[in-house]
Amino acid sequence: MLIVMEEKATQEQMDEVVRTIHSFSYGCHVIPGQKGWVVGVTGNGKGKHRLQVLECLPGVERVVPISSPYKLASLETKKEKTFLKVSDVVIGNGRLVVMAGPCSVEDETQLMETARAVKEAGASILRGGAFKPRTSPYAFQGLGEEGLKLLAKARSHFGLPVVTEVLDQQDVDLVASYADILQVGARNVQNFALLKKVGRVRKPVLLKRGMMTSLEEYLMSAEYVLAEGNRDVILCERGIRTFETATRNTLDLSAIPVLKEKTHLPIIVDPSHAAGNWKYVPPLSLAAVAVGADGLIIEVHPWPEKALSDGPQSLKPDQFRRLMEDIRQMAKWMGREV
Amino acid sequence: MLIVMEEKATQEQMDEVVRTIHSFSYGCHVIPGQKGWVVGVTGNGKGKHRLQVLECLPGVERVVPISSPYKLASLETKKEKTFLKVSDVVIGNGRLVVMAGPCSVEDETQLMETARAVKEAGASILRGGAFKPRTSPYAFQGLGEEGLKLLAKARSHFGLPVVTEVLDQQDVDLVASYADILQVGARNVQNFALLKKVGRVRKPVLLKRGMMTSLEEYLMSAEYVLAEGNRDVILCERGIRTFETATRNTLDLSAIPVLKEKTHLPIIVDPSHAAGNWKYVPPLSLAAVAVGADGLIIEVHPWPEKALSDGPQSLKPDQFRRLMEDIRQMAKWMGREV
Amino acid sequence: MLIVMEEKATQEQMDEVVRTIHSFSYGCHVIPGQKGWVVGVTGNGKGKHRLQVLECLPGVERVVPISSPYKLASLETKKEKTFLKVSDVVIGNGRLVVMAGPCSVEDETQLMETARAVKEAGASILRGGAFKPRTSPYAFQGLGEEGLKLLAKARSHFGLPVVTEVLDQQDVDLVASYADILQVGARNVQNFALLKKVGRVRKPVLLKRGMMTSLEEYLMSAEYVLAEGNRDVILCERGIRTFETATRNTLDLSAIPVLKEKTHLPIIVDPSHAAGNWKYVPPLSLAAVAVGADGLIIEVHPWPEKALSDGPQSLKPDQFRRLMEDIRQMAKWMGREV
Amino acid sequence: MLIVMEEKATQEQMDEVVRTIHSFSYGCHVIPGQKGWVVGVTGNGKGKHRLQVLECLPGVERVVPISSPYKLASLETKKEKTFLKVSDVVIGNGRLVVMAGPCSVEDETQLMETARAVKEAGASILRGGAFKPRTSPYAFQGLGEEGLKLLAKARSHFGLPVVTEVLDQQDVDLVASYADILQVGARNVQNFALLKKVGRVRKPVLLKRGMMTSLEEYLMSAEYVLAEGNRDVILCERGIRTFETATRNTLDLSAIPVLKEKTHLPIIVDPSHAAGNWKYVPPLSLAAVAVGADGLIIEVHPWPEKALSDGPQSLKPDQFRRLMEDIRQMAKWMGREV
Repeated sequence: MLIVMEEKATQEQMDEVVRTIHSFSYGCHVIPGQKGWVVGVTGNGKGKHRLQVLECLPGVERVVPISSPYKLASLETKKEKTFLKVSDVVIGNGRLVVMAGPCSVEDETQLMETARAVKEAGASILRGGAFKPRTSPYAFQGLGEEGLKLLAKARSHFGLPVVTEVLDQQDVDLVASYADILQVGARNVQNFALLKKVGRVRKPVLLKRGMMTSLEEYLMSAEYVLAEGNRDVILCERGIRTFETATRNTLDLSAIPVLKEKTHLPIIVDPSHAAGNWKYVPPLSLAAVAVGADGLIIEVHPWPEKALSDGPQSLKPDQFRRLMEDIRQMAKWMGREV
Repeated sequence: MLIVMEEKATQEQMDEVVRTIHSFSYGCHVIPGQKGWVVGVTGNGKGKHRLQVLECLPGVERVVPISSPYKLASLETKKEKTFLKVSDVVIGNGRLVVMAGPCSVEDETQLMETARAVKEAGASILRGGAFKPRTSPYAFQGLGEEGLKLLAKARSHFGLPVVTEVLDQQDVDLVASYADILQVGARNVQNFALLKKVGRVRKPVLLKRGMMTSLEEYLMSAEYVLAEGNRDVILCERGIRTFETATRNTLDLSAIPVLKEKTHLPIIVDPSHAAGNWKYVPPLSLAAVAVGADGLIIEVHPWPEKALSDGPQSLKPDQFRRLMEDIRQMAKWMGREV
Repeated sequence: MLIVMEEKATQEQMDEVVRTIHSFSYGCHVIPGQKGWVVGVTGNGKGKHRLQVLECLPGVERVVPISSPYKLASLETKKEKTFLKVSDVVIGNGRLVVMAGPCSVEDETQLMETARAVKEAGASILRGGAFKPRTSPYAFQGLGEEGLKLLAKARSHFGLPVVTEVLDQQDVDLVASYADILQVGARNVQNFALLKKVGRVRKPVLLKRGMMTSLEEYLMSAEYVLAEGNRDVILCERGIRTFETATRNTLDLSAIPVLKEKTHLPIIVDPSHAAGNWKYVPPLSLAAVAVGADGLIIEVHPWPEKALSDGPQSLKPDQFRRLMEDIRQMAKWMGREV
Repeated sequence: MLIVMEEKATQEQMDEVVRTIHSFSYGCHVIPGQKGWVVGVTGNGKGKHRLQVLECLPGVERVVPISSPYKLASLETKKEKTFLKVSDVVIGNGRLVVMAGPCSVEDETQLMETARAVKEAGASILRGGAFKPRTSPYAFQGLGEEGLKLLAKARSHFGLPVVTEVLDQQDVDLVASYADILQVGARNVQNFALLKKVGRVRKPVLLKRGMMTSLEEYLMSAEYVLAEGNRDVILCERGIRTFETATRNTLDLSAIPVLKEKTHLPIIVDPSHAAGNWKYVPPLSLAAVAVGADGLIIEVHPWPEKALSDGPQSLKPDQFRRLMEDIRQMAKWMGREV
């Protein structure tokens, strides 16, 4: 951490800064500069965020953090990529994993039909929401446990592990008793109570980036899960909110190489929620593979025009099949398996 | 809701759209236009969000929603402004309410000292966090119930009602047993489980806008609380996330007149979190009063440089006292009491 | 400027960094840190931006600029506030200056009618566009020189100095021969050819912030004008582009206290373009006064429903008159004249 | 265009709206709705933007535009993709075009060295800036005509057509006398004087999207060029400004499929400026190819650590060569030539 002093800072103000740093059990180096002093803080890292209050001291212009605030999520701490096994599907080891299924589980016919289609097309994990976070209290909120049971049925029938969202820490044990991967959604990326709770469960966690989450904050959210003991976290870029409204959100594919430089955790991409329109899902899926994502999560629905949620962004089974063929070929060209 | 057809849409596609609208029990009018048809949907509003799936049908260019999706929060539904009473403090009746206190409750000395100062300066509600949402799992997480007890002590000592944040639905009853107003923070504005839970409690709710919540989504979040039966919701603008980094967030003061046009709920402003820097808090507070806010919530700390959280944005007691004098004079000029 | 080295940087990489800094004629201090070295650059500031290329060297994590890149615009360079005189109107000396008029000059009746109304209501400068920057090539582009002549006529008739936009460096001399203040619009805030040209003219420049201009970039644009010798620059906050669409742009009133801390230049506010809706103009104008702006620029049109541009955001003369009364009273309370 | 009336609108207000529409020589259909009337405007499209002022009339809630405001750029107007020929390079016909070269032309050695390297690696157009738009007036502003001459020399030596930026309409003829493609930069995307001027030149125009430009505004800017008679416009996505700071801008790859649905113009991608860091250029380039871009424009510098501008985002020749091999293979897999 560096403390940049104002040009007009006095020696007394300088001394007070040094005293305060020492009072937090840190050491420091004072560097004379052309536009005033800079103070470099040295020390062991515990409670380092408290140093931010130095900004309150007279004569201090700003406090510049130098090292990353996450530890367990950092590639500096753990040099090998994390890979994790869900049944016989391995995520993060170079193979490209495709998760697919409906936004919401609506009924048995719809789910079984979709599961069959995505399995045949080559997806290796089934997605489907039983608890749905909806902007409106009047919108379909999901089938709840009934939906979880249908997911379990589809899993045993088609041999596809299941990923489904959990909205509240109170439901974590229930959802974990059915699902293979627990999804924490974009709106809950800083629901710290939920993050801590899924951190204490022995199931992998698919943690979606929030619409407003910087990559550093995102890794801090992953850190919450890791710090509770659960090391099986999968990151997922799903679009950020910007001024552009031509797509529902702006898919931030740069996030993939940036995250790969900072963390050992696997990273997948959700083009369906980012685009909000099925037409853009195939090209964005291919771009996600090309940019180096470890996998994709894609919405598929046999009858999008009747879907209870997110119909406009769902692929039909035959569209998904064609996309999977393209994905397989691109992956092959890149020396990767699907 | 209006369905805009593509210019090249065929009669068959048009017919399918009309059939689908009827299958949802809605009526419609077809309007010929120069660039193709537009279909106006008429009907009773239940499940209207499902009509969004019409976007999936061939020949449909886009679906334009016309009426607002919130009902109970809407000024169309309830024409009189909502005002609510907390002990003998009334919020929303024209009087300007100032809530003030530390970001976090740290210890008895700090809290009592701050409470005394803000009371003397003229604040009418005490703020202070016992459960803290922190980006880092390694940062101070608040004193928990111990903090709630200190808040209750300060209340009985100084006669100030207390507002404090609740992070998780599991803690709602506990927090409600101590606090006068339950705060739902910016990161939880779409934590629907929490919104539903505080909607079933008989305490007013201070619902902060999220950093990336549109005003329409924000009112939908308020609708979650109202729909559960709790009609005492206070809105709070606290800055949105933009590209500008000179302030922590960008205080969106336009939100006040926009919200006043759409909803009957009272709206206050939090300049401290928006600015992230105590120096900007006084001018932004005056601007918030001038723009028509029903109140303010301001961070005050006797020793900001030792604060365990948010020190850089906290006013010292004497700075707060001077600000209160300015606020009182401006309010007086506007014919309002503080 | 500080060079943060990667944790794993080698001594050789460190040496190369130091060599490169010296090759640019700068000195440096190497500071050992817990997570690797930090190098503080010292020296005389010429060509400092070139040091950014140190990011290319192996072992360098990032380059952190410390001092502000603008000089002439900086409050550090010139401690007294700049104020400037336009006829007998002084801007920046504490008095609140209100500029008002139509978006576009449309014809003589419209302009004279508006000029009379804003003069009577207490405005001291007349605004009106003769060259209009329009998103569409098919929209009304302004009356050109004919509009400038009408503005000159209104000035001589009502004694109001005139501010009007110049779109292109080729028109600068023409516009300057009629106008008292040259406006550079939001879309041209980084049109450096235009900035240089108005910097060589002896007329004050009203430089609007761009919709996506950071405050630092904004001051750099002012620096372009100042560096050419024209020291009479007026800044103007007019809303930034964010995700929120309830208003046309988001008025960033925090920019006023932030800019006042960094620069000696006067700063006014344009609530009309920010809001895009006349209903929000009065409360935002009062907020701008309260936050400390040196003035306002407001759109007024006698018949907004017939305006050739920006009708929806224009106040009618009687609405403007009522607003001026409120502004005068608020200014009076703040000890300022209008 | 649709006029949505307020729920409480009266018959008189309704009549006034209809009268006003007729006064603009448009027809209309009144559609009764559950929440008040909607009025659909019909007519021939001239001056349609003026209908926006209907928002000023009492009883009108909002005005919803239905059809796109650009004509010549629209795929509805011209169904076949535009392709254009620059020497023997064809852009937009399915082949993938790679433009590469230094940010700025610095001297003959640097330019010739880079030109040789990019030619050998397989680029087909040489980029290089002679007039540079720089945030700071104190930064290197380009070599001007001297730079243009060096570009012409490199062209004749290596047989590579040249693309270079023009900053001001005054320089258009000069730049056009040397360059094969005129670049209009991101900061000038709404410099309408410049757009009109390059629209009157017989050279293709590479029009970069602004950091803050919505796709609709972007196509309107292209429309300015097309409307002046120049039909050879190449679009270029180069990153938009968002809250995320991990990359310099956020590359919006979704823009490619969205634009391809709306316009017949070719679209290329600039990953270098978007990322601001050479490390992210290769994966983003591959993603751009996968998403369907017609080409790439990439910064290459033989000695990035000595570059006078944008060094941190420039690839070295050997990095560029390896990237070109990957691009060629991916293109081949997609059935495209490079």
